[in-house]
Amino acid sequence: MTKKYLIAPGPTPVPEEVLLEMAKPVMHHRNAQFSAIFAEAREGLKPVFGTKQDVLILLSSGTAAMEAALINTMSAGDRVLVINAGKFGERFTMIAKAYGLVVDELVYEWGRVARAEDVKAYLDRHPDTKAVAVQGSETSTTVYHPIRELAEVVRGYKDTILIVDGITSVGVHETRMDEWGIDILITGSQKALMLPPGLAFIALSEKAWAMTKKSNLPKFYLDLTVELKNQKQDTTAWTPGVNLIYGLKAVVKMLKEEGYDNVYKRHTVCAEATRKGLQALGMRLLAKDTPANSATGFFVPEGVNATAVEDYLREKVGVTLASGQDDIKGKAIRVSHLGYHSYFDTIIALSAIEMALKVFGCDIKLGAGVAAAEAVIAAAFPAK
Amino acid sequence: MTKKYLIAPGPTPVPEEVLLEMAKPVMHHRNAQFSAIFAEAREGLKPVFGTKQDVLILLSSGTAAMEAALINTMSAGDRVLVINAGKFGERFTMIAKAYGLVVDELVYEWGRVARAEDVKAYLDRHPDTKAVAVQGSETSTTVYHPIRELAEVVRGYKDTILIVDGITSVGVHETRMDEWGIDILITGSQKALMLPPGLAFIALSEKAWAMTKKSNLPKFYLDLTVELKNQKQDTTAWTPGVNLIYGLKAVVKMLKEEGYDNVYKRHTVCAEATRKGLQALGMRLLAKDTPANSATGFFVPEGVNATAVEDYLREKVGVTLASGQDDIKGKAIRVSHLGYHSYFDTIIALSAIEMALKVFGCDIKLGAGVAAAEAVIAAAFPAK
Repeated sequence: MTKKYLIAPGPTPVPEEVLLEMAKPVMHHRNAQFSAIFAEAREGLKPVFGTKQDVLILLSSGTAAMEAALINTMSAGDRVLVINAGKFGERFTMIAKAYGLVVDELVYEWGRVARAEDVKAYLDRHPDTKAVAVQGSETSTTVYHPIRELAEVVRGYKDTILIVDGITSVGVHETRMDEWGIDILITGSQKALMLPPGLAFIALSEKAWAMTKKSNLPKFYLDLTVELKNQKQDTTAWTPGVNLIYGLKAVVKMLKEEGYDNVYKRHTVCAEATRKGLQALGMRLLAKDTPANSATGFFVPEGVNATAVEDYLREKVGVTLASGQDDIKGKAIRVSHLGYHSYFDTIIALSAIEMALKVFGCDIKLGAGVAAAEAVIAAAFPAK
Repeated sequence: MTKKYLIAPGPTPVPEEVLLEMAKPVMHHRNAQFSAIFAEAREGLKPVFGTKQDVLILLSSGTAAMEAALINTMSAGDRVLVINAGKFGERFTMIAKAYGLVVDELVYEWGRVARAEDVKAYLDRHPDTKAVAVQGSETSTTVYHPIRELAEVVRGYKDTILIVDGITSVGVHETRMDEWGIDILITGSQKALMLPPGLAFIALSEKAWAMTKKSNLPKFYLDLTVELKNQKQDTTAWTPGVNLIYGLKAVVKMLKEEGYDNVYKRHTVCAEATRKGLQALGMRLLAKDTPANSATGFFVPEGVNATAVEDYLREKVGVTLASGQDDIKGKAIRVSHLGYHSYFDTIIALSAIEMALKVFGCDIKLGAGVAAAEAVIAAAFPAK
């Protein structure tokens, strides 16, 4: 037996009690018993989104929710600005182009975050822009975009909405959708929400809902107007993911019981401990600007094949980390802090990394990464 | 405690061993271990579809697969013929209209099936028709359309494809996609495939794949060309439903072990036993033509409120049946035979119905429905 540790930024581990909750018998979705579960699960998402708006539950991966955000608010030929600072930024562009939207990108070097002043300058040049789309945490480069500042800028333009793909930031970085002025916020089940893949979540501001009335792009399964009408009555337009929703109800209860501030603190401490640990080992981080607390990427030393390190860890000691994507594949590794992850998962990740680097011939002092992480964690839990 | 029996046509009960399979820890979806599971699950769907084509797995409900069938093959302004003989036929029309297709319907009275000669006559009048869309089993009226004959007709028109929504017929009625000439066949996880809602499955003929090359309707999450490319390499374009796919692998193994012919026989016998049992109680069936083996609908006697009967059964004795939809809501009840359902589930359904009808004041001989069903089941299992 090799005990397994999944420390990649999604899918993330699901708590045993949630797995067993989802193993309960399927029930019919059109009756009061299921509606009560569905309503409780939906209600529990609101504090995580920081919104009083309806959070809609879709049966899909997060990508479909990104698509839903655009196709429910935009019309043919509308102008969209995409923040492209990594692989997930690119995806918004691909979706927008698939629907014939006019897309401009603000491209940032991998590891950098968007600058609010660049967005402002663009919107001043192109006041006809209907949407700005950005990730919260850009998981490919492990940075956290300045969502609050971007929202501050975009709310100054009455015909422009801000779409935030919070797939790896909601439930990680505190997000106050209503207060900050985010118009569309998205997340998925298999990240901070500690569930298997299969559910996506989306909430719209009044400004965004108003745009749905004029949107003329074709949609059916992802028609949010139809979903809103149904979900306000505690049901869904199409068959919902019954067992995943049992799990969601359990998860939102766990988050509430832990306390949202404690959830954010846990992610913050694990991320900071990982960064300090990696730096103590002499590793260079992917993030050149504000790092995300969802995951931390780092470059392996020159001459080491990152993919070989990952394969070694997964096969030999049961630790699954994530690859660098696209140009940095084979050069970088990403460590998750998402969801059902605590301080000792961070210790495991660093321990695994330092052992593997040693095995692969790097000049590493065993224990140095763990020690630096322990210092961060211990400081977060003073004796009194 | 009231022991629960889910005897509605979807979602259907999930075998305990499959629920526990899905309760196994989440694994990362981009590695060889998951790819092997995914490949095995996909391969196991081929005999159920009766195809050598790739069966693609989507993370969605079946409705999204209906949408995918149209938007991947049709282009703006294309003509589509929809067989509308119930609620699910209507859905194809709604999808086609949402994408600006030219839709004609062949409307049949609820309880009737499509006639191949009507389709032929339509196609002769409109040889520019690009697709004919039909349900296998129309679950709202519990009839089975003559899919083999319809396919025989449509294959005579070189520019027309036949799209079959097999959501409640695949795994119930033997379906030989390749041999019969079905161009697109769809099903969902929560019916005969004995899983929770969350996966949809779709296979395309060569003729349908050729049409995808010319299709100009917008799509992203449901772009089957992108999925095919990925799934041929045992991966997916977007994050797959990892735990549902653990379950799918277990289900396709169970179906193979039972033997596909035995699976179809089980559904046939349960459906026939239900029909005979209901008729012995003097009930009138919804199906006026070939009945489906997925579910059996019947009208309750005049003066009885079908919804009240269903509520009574669900609340008092734990048996969940399904309502009649739209115009027959409150007048009819539907009993499922789908998936993880065996002879004694049929007996339970009939026993529950005859007791409830008695309680609601109907002139019913207790045991008469069960007796008629037992005769059908016993005849299917001769002593030698």
